Amino acid sequence: MALADLETLARNESGIASAVAILKQLFGERLKTSQAMREQHAHTITYIPGQLPDAVVFAESEEDVRETVRICAEHRVPVIPFGTGTSLEGGVNAPAGGISIDLAGMNRIIAVHAEDLDVTLEPGVTREALNNHLRDMGLFFPIDPGANASLGGMAATRASGTNAVRYGTMRDNVVSLSAVMPDGRLVRTGGRARKSSAGYDLTRLLVGSEGTLGIITQLTLRLYGIPEAMSAAIASFPDVESACNATILAMQSGIPMARIELMDTESVTAVNAYSKLDMPQQPLLLLEFHGSQAGVKEQAESFGEIASECGGTGFKWVTKPEDRNRLWKARHDAYWAIKAATPGKQSFPTDVCVPISRLAECVTETERDIKENGLFGPIVGHVGDGNFHASICLDPADADELRRAEDVMERLAMRALAMEGTCTGEHGVGQGKRRFLRLEHGTGSDVMAAIKRAIDPDNIMNPGKVVTLT
Amino acid sequence: MALADLETLARNESGIASAVAILKQLFGERLKTSQAMREQHAHTITYIPGQLPDAVVFAESEEDVRETVRICAEHRVPVIPFGTGTSLEGGVNAPAGGISIDLAGMNRIIAVHAEDLDVTLEPGVTREALNNHLRDMGLFFPIDPGANASLGGMAATRASGTNAVRYGTMRDNVVSLSAVMPDGRLVRTGGRARKSSAGYDLTRLLVGSEGTLGIITQLTLRLYGIPEAMSAAIASFPDVESACNATILAMQSGIPMARIELMDTESVTAVNAYSKLDMPQQPLLLLEFHGSQAGVKEQAESFGEIASECGGTGFKWVTKPEDRNRLWKARHDAYWAIKAATPGKQSFPTDVCVPISRLAECVTETERDIKENGLFGPIVGHVGDGNFHASICLDPADADELRRAEDVMERLAMRALAMEGTCTGEHGVGQGKRRFLRLEHGTGSDVMAAIKRAIDPDNIMNPGKVVTLT
Repeated sequence: MALADLETLARNESGIASAVAILKQLFGERLKTSQAMREQHAHTITYIPGQLPDAVVFAESEEDVRETVRICAEHRVPVIPFGTGTSLEGGVNAPAGGISIDLAGMNRIIAVHAEDLDVTLEPGVTREALNNHLRDMGLFFPIDPGANASLGGMAATRASGTNAVRYGTMRDNVVSLSAVMPDGRLVRTGGRARKSSAGYDLTRLLVGSEGTLGIITQLTLRLYGIPEAMSAAIASFPDVESACNATILAMQSGIPMARIELMDTESVTAVNAYSKLDMPQQPLLLLEFHGSQAGVKEQAESFGEIASECGGTGFKWVTKPEDRNRLWKARHDAYWAIKAATPGKQSFPTDVCVPISRLAECVTETERDIKENGLFGPIVGHVGDGNFHASICLDPADADELRRAEDVMERLAMRALAMEGTCTGEHGVGQGKRRFLRLEHGTGSDVMAAIKRAIDPDNIMNPGKVVTLT
Repeated sequence: MALADLETLARNESGIASAVAILKQLFGERLKTSQAMREQHAHTITYIPGQLPDAVVFAESEEDVRETVRICAEHRVPVIPFGTGTSLEGGVNAPAGGISIDLAGMNRIIAVHAEDLDVTLEPGVTREALNNHLRDMGLFFPIDPGANASLGGMAATRASGTNAVRYGTMRDNVVSLSAVMPDGRLVRTGGRARKSSAGYDLTRLLVGSEGTLGIITQLTLRLYGIPEAMSAAIASFPDVESACNATILAMQSGIPMARIELMDTESVTAVNAYSKLDMPQQPLLLLEFHGSQAGVKEQAESFGEIASECGGTGFKWVTKPEDRNRLWKARHDAYWAIKAATPGKQSFPTDVCVPISRLAECVTETERDIKENGLFGPIVGHVGDGNFHASICLDPADADELRRAEDVMERLAMRALAMEGTCTGEHGVGQGKRRFLRLEHGTGSDVMAAIKRAIDPDNIMNPGKVVTLT
């Protein structure tokens, strides 16, 4: 499928055979080679076809990862880290075969330091498991990409989600990490200090490297106190531009919004049908505020004034959990509503991010392009970040529909780059976005390739992803 | 002087002679070789002795930088970027000679995007110049390292300062940048999107690389709306531990402090003498809050309650600018007060940063160590970050005093590392902290060296700084 850049990589058959044999001896039942298990570990929740690894090692410790990498390095065999398999861009595929390292068993929370607002944990811990563990301590970890992803995977793809506008992305919330490098050595990128000027920022280099430079085996993450109070708000707007203008004004005036989400008319319509709601069929903003009782009241009311100035209608704000959930139901149901609106079709996610001043234009042009090409692709966006997703629904067996979708996605990426944006705000590059990386980074992609070659000269770490080495 | 790791690097005499001759032809009067100019460009405001470049190029454009780097690359001659010369760790020294590129003339503010809360500018713009430019637009750039440094230099050293607790460091506030790489090629690390998952984070790799990988020629920075209201507060504490406990509680409860600064008893005493104040001779916390009128009142009062719970006394908060300045006078005068307390002596800055739960212990042990060694070294700290500076005052000609200070500084760095901290929170490594880099990063420093070799194989970019290549 042309949508993803599935590089043709040579398989090192004899190396793979040797490595699998040695790993089998070492790991016994913790090495699996069944077709089902291999398929599961190449499975992504999106459109990119699976490319199976030759075996899966179920790691339980840092030492397991090191042993596996050492053996693979010796035989020049690819190693592909696997968390929960929620990658959207083919990140867990094995285009040259090799060994998938399943890290789900490395799910220990090693230490919560409540005074320092940080936690040290293994990469297989999921964000929901972490937040369940933290709740009684009055702490939480904010990054929420939707799926109950593993924190190692979230770090590897530089994930974010609905509340990045307030709390940042994984880039901002990984204090330090440990990674097994391609030669089997362990690197610890820092301690637990909040900031450091000690040398190159290896933490940030590994965050977002998608397993192509090293395999994350431990993370120290920032935590936050659960806010004393939360409020939620909703407002409809005559068009996307008015909704974006309200967002810009709210940000300029320093309202510390925890979440601000845009749904376009198509999304609202889909949710109305699916969830039996009767919201105005117009662009919608959904917000959440965190702070003190007085603070969240003031924030919601200030936003209400701005919304009204920008032509917003139906502004409402609430604080009780059940009321907040009711208000946010539209957003929570969006994924299923869009699926239900197009039975039998698959959803192709897009993920551009642009400066917020260009967002209305980018969304509006994209809506038009989708429509003009006879496609269905509702848009939901993290509007405070300028990041939005069009879920283009199609039947991959329909060659004509597929071609039109490909063209729309290509134009969308180019549109975002022309607006000083990026082809991926939070999903990562994987295989799906590789062809845009050079367009986005120019000579920067040569620097990335030079770093990849310096750290992983035999290209065994998740080969065929992110960087292009030719 | 043993305090800094002044590597002995061979000078490439013939290469330098050729490069200087060619550059002279190209730049004419904009290339200077006078002793005074060369000394000025090796001058740092701290203890490390100067190592002079052979010539200084006054760059006025990106193209000037590219030309200079290309010529130096061809002749394998070192290139050392120079901003305002406020480096504290020998960052602008030329241990193997070479060409200093003075970037102060590249001081254009290219574009303020008020809607996107960002600005694109040249690296020679200073933070005060930027904030003067922004004031009428209701915007500001928060990072404040004290000195009126250039923003390029601040990015290169990953600087921060008093309000990093709220706004982060340069790591968090550089959206993207352009840099001339060692082969003369220009890399632009991203657009203006707030976040991106498109490949390796070259922005964060170059931020903090201190000119050893490339020379920053353009920056896009995040901006913030000037808050509607500000309040300042002050409280004294019986000991450093109580002050740290109050800080921890305030952070856990989510009070969004813009600044929270600790002064130890020694600092308060020095300021009392210098500024004719009569503050209790006890550890002091100084705070600033940003928000709405109601918000900054609530924040200050909430902190007041916490301070009192932790044994704080003399709590006061104010909002008027003149009252705020009066309250903060102690902090603003600290540098001069410490200088005045020890006429004829030089101040040796330290810069460790530890998890905040270890801060009281680290400060207290350091105070004791300084005292037991007959030294004077008042401590001022960015307590919300766990970062503090002891200004060890001494006469460098007094060999015994110098040796005692060296030992104290060595123990301080080791103490911070043992507490999962860092040897430098915000000053950078330069020459001064190189010997601690391997202790702090272990195999990570090999990865840093591999990156340096891959990007700058001839080691022409600010050689002898940050990484050790042997």
